[in-house]
Amino acid sequence: MRLQAAIFLIATSGVLAGSVAIKSAVFQKETSSSYLELVPLKPLSLSAFTLCMRVATELKGEREVILFAYRTRDFDELNLWRELDGRLAFYLSGEGVFFDVPQLGALETHLCASWDSSSGAATIFMDGKKSLTKIYKKGHSIRSGGTVIIGQDPDTYLGDFDANQSFVGEISDVNMWDHVLPASTIQDIYSGKRGPRGNVFDWENIDLKIRGSVDVVTYEL
Amino acid sequence: MRLQAAIFLIATSGVLAGSVAIKSAVFQKETSSSYLELVPLKPLSLSAFTLCMRVATELKGEREVILFAYRTRDFDELNLWRELDGRLAFYLSGEGVFFDVPQLGALETHLCASWDSSSGAATIFMDGKKSLTKIYKKGHSIRSGGTVIIGQDPDTYLGDFDANQSFVGEISDVNMWDHVLPASTIQDIYSGKRGPRGNVFDWENIDLKIRGSVDVVTYEL
Amino acid sequence: MRLQAAIFLIATSGVLAGSVAIKSAVFQKETSSSYLELVPLKPLSLSAFTLCMRVATELKGEREVILFAYRTRDFDELNLWRELDGRLAFYLSGEGVFFDVPQLGALETHLCASWDSSSGAATIFMDGKKSLTKIYKKGHSIRSGGTVIIGQDPDTYLGDFDANQSFVGEISDVNMWDHVLPASTIQDIYSGKRGPRGNVFDWENIDLKIRGSVDVVTYEL
Repeated sequence: MRLQAAIFLIATSGVLAGSVAIKSAVFQKETSSSYLELVPLKPLSLSAFTLCMRVATELKGEREVILFAYRTRDFDELNLWRELDGRLAFYLSGEGVFFDVPQLGALETHLCASWDSSSGAATIFMDGKKSLTKIYKKGHSIRSGGTVIIGQDPDTYLGDFDANQSFVGEISDVNMWDHVLPASTIQDIYSGKRGPRGNVFDWENIDLKIRGSVDVVTYEL
Repeated sequence: MRLQAAIFLIATSGVLAGSVAIKSAVFQKETSSSYLELVPLKPLSLSAFTLCMRVATELKGEREVILFAYRTRDFDELNLWRELDGRLAFYLSGEGVFFDVPQLGALETHLCASWDSSSGAATIFMDGKKSLTKIYKKGHSIRSGGTVIIGQDPDTYLGDFDANQSFVGEISDVNMWDHVLPASTIQDIYSGKRGPRGNVFDWENIDLKIRGSVDVVTYEL
Repeated sequence: MRLQAAIFLIATSGVLAGSVAIKSAVFQKETSSSYLELVPLKPLSLSAFTLCMRVATELKGEREVILFAYRTRDFDELNLWRELDGRLAFYLSGEGVFFDVPQLGALETHLCASWDSSSGAATIFMDGKKSLTKIYKKGHSIRSGGTVIIGQDPDTYLGDFDANQSFVGEISDVNMWDHVLPASTIQDIYSGKRGPRGNVFDWENIDLKIRGSVDVVTYEL
């Protein structure tokens, strides 16, 4: 038993020390047709989540940018945006919660959003730094049965895309958990330690469906 | 040999995974009524102190923000402010000492202030980085018998609050010592090592009295 | 039992308290008279050097700031400046070498300058990060027989001070070597490891002569 523990831990430290080759999605230009569909490991019936990604974009000025869209037939269940004014926000079926944080830019930002229904605590992390907490949609639940896409904002189910809201730049390492990760775990993931794999999305083993013109390249973390 | 390795690795993972759940106070909007009262472990009769907290706020521009207020019946014994012009300052019964440091923002800053009566050395630390020292109120003493509050600036004892000076955002991990901590200890605390517990305020075991509308959530460091 | 406790406590205090108390020089206001004289361990007859210090200042905008001045009767042998435009520069008897690095500010910067006569390699380090190398005064030698001061720029030997060039803020941990230190050693010193002591100036054992109004306080690294 103890022997197994030793072997397991040695294996774990082996993972920590190695560089990992990961896929990275490059959206070269503004379109109303190109996107990635992400197949989840389990239904997105969620009363809490942590969603992380690495994102870089040269989009600036007054421009909305969709970063993550989970829509069921009737609702935007979980959308993550860069707003017109540069703030970051996420929306759970209706009004959003806004964070007046530093701008995304051409250098990669490790970005996480987390939310917990029981307390309503909503938080953004940028490069391992935690934002102030907002109290948002206490008691709400995210419903299953939709589709997650990256690159476009669907105003109807997988349709009505608007090029002016599309993502241009690079997104990778999209991972999602059905619970709130500790701040120290998010700092570890930011600083390159391969922490716990996402149980909703695990980018290292993700099933991606490419629609339109998206370049998926590989780079070593 | 293998047994020792197992024990060592278990101990290591114990340190890495040693995330601590702490309370965090969210002030969602500007009020002249909401605040926290912090019950100290000992009277604030002090000839030196180190006061630390984690703070995040979206307040900007020309806006005073009270970060910590300790008032006795007749005096503001120790008040920590973000000034109109964005500088940080603290006041020990009268004129303050000002620090032209980087702005507080929506991403959490680990902030400490320290002062020692014998030398008058007054210093700010932001995210583990020490400011220049100012010589301030050499020989002065902070008097006991008052109340510490977070969220409002009392112009009289626990009264005369001004919404325009109130705190909006999130404050947590407020710890206070009756002496000056070494710079390396403050760096350790900033980087998440749980250092020596405060002997005036110890946030992990603090007695908080909530007045008005303050959301106290829990998050894992 | 008591023995084990003792061993544990010694080990703990060894780790936690491995902090060093060092002197720190606070220049509270602009003067043309206040400075520190630093007595070297050996004559400054140098064909290479590394000069390090911790420096914090609130001086901004178009303002020259002298950081270190070594003058013999006729020459400015080695002067380190913040220039009018915020660049850092050092001068070895004549024209200087300029580095367009981040600004000094109210939070302490660990600053080093190094130079080697045989290659002419001149470099600045800020908080352990190395600048680009400039080739400067290959074959030159720094001459002995002068005096090192902090706080003022002497236009004649220990005289003709100009308040508009004086240092205001805090300087500590001034160490100097008669050779170029490896980048990794400078990073270690920056991150608080007490590396090799300077053999020209060793701040922990330095002989300081205070002229005018300079507050020398002690703080624990």
